[in-house]
Amino acid sequence: MKKLILYIATSLDGYIAQPNDDLSFLSRVQQPGEDYGYADFVATVDTVIMGRKTYDWVMNKVPEFPHADKAAYILTRTERPRIGNTTFYTGNLKDLVLRLKQEDGKHIFCDGGAEVVNELLKEGLLDELIISVVPTLVGNGTRLFKDGRPEQELELVSARAFESGLTQLHYRQAVHN
Amino acid sequence: MKKLILYIATSLDGYIAQPNDDLSFLSRVQQPGEDYGYADFVATVDTVIMGRKTYDWVMNKVPEFPHADKAAYILTRTERPRIGNTTFYTGNLKDLVLRLKQEDGKHIFCDGGAEVVNELLKEGLLDELIISVVPTLVGNGTRLFKDGRPEQELELVSARAFESGLTQLHYRQAVHN
Repeated sequence: MKKLILYIATSLDGYIAQPNDDLSFLSRVQQPGEDYGYADFVATVDTVIMGRKTYDWVMNKVPEFPHADKAAYILTRTERPRIGNTTFYTGNLKDLVLRLKQEDGKHIFCDGGAEVVNELLKEGLLDELIISVVPTLVGNGTRLFKDGRPEQELELVSARAFESGLTQLHYRQAVHN
Repeated sequence: MKKLILYIATSLDGYIAQPNDDLSFLSRVQQPGEDYGYADFVATVDTVIMGRKTYDWVMNKVPEFPHADKAAYILTRTERPRIGNTTFYTGNLKDLVLRLKQEDGKHIFCDGGAEVVNELLKEGLLDELIISVVPTLVGNGTRLFKDGRPEQELELVSARAFESGLTQLHYRQAVHN
């Protein structure tokens, strides 16, 4: 079955953005020739799930949607016409994820933002989390993890420290026998 | 100069306790013969700073204060008589820390809780953070990092993954030239 995988960067104090969607703290770990495994990860997925706010933020920054080659589902409450492989999805998130997991092919990338991540965690739908911890305390902003989710036990798959001080923690849902 | 070092455990979603000061998630990583470097760390300190609520919580659980052999400062708004080396400190936190850092000897251990940690971060007084990330999402509780602190850049000293899935991330304040 396809797995739904979160791949995201956060500050040590748990924020994915500073106020006003400021992501400048990520520049601290930008180094030539170091993508922190992103290209290798993206090669394992053929489907993307993303929140509408994150999508609009990205589209404001880049000329072309970076996931145009994949089946992308943008979660929104407002209908928009499909653009190529990109579908604006107004239905039930759990239904979508359970359907996508049944399809053949590669895995599913959850590319944020925090609202979608927390909805997926509430439903227990995230199979793996790959979290890149940037060595900084930003002090304020949008938290990756919001209050009011169920408990979920995890297993550590790997922990990697990089030259820049970024540490990448990879977890999967713990399997109960 | 003595350094002030935070040594603390948190869930992956950033909580140091579940509601009602429930620390049972820590039991997931309790393994015979594995103290995650705690004894080695404690051997490097001769002074402890701790919040009053954390102190009372500890004293409710154990017959004897675990830091009775060190100079301990319990931060409180209500005066209490000194007990051996343990002082209940009602003065200014920054004054205390700056004074202690000037003394000779080993380092200073910040043993929580979240209120004290966040006050120290607001004042830029924590020199190092050793954070043990427990592989679980607890969903709710007392956050290690509260909103409304200044930005602080860090340098990664080390990252260690343990058999249990706990990862220990060790940072120090970044030095600016």
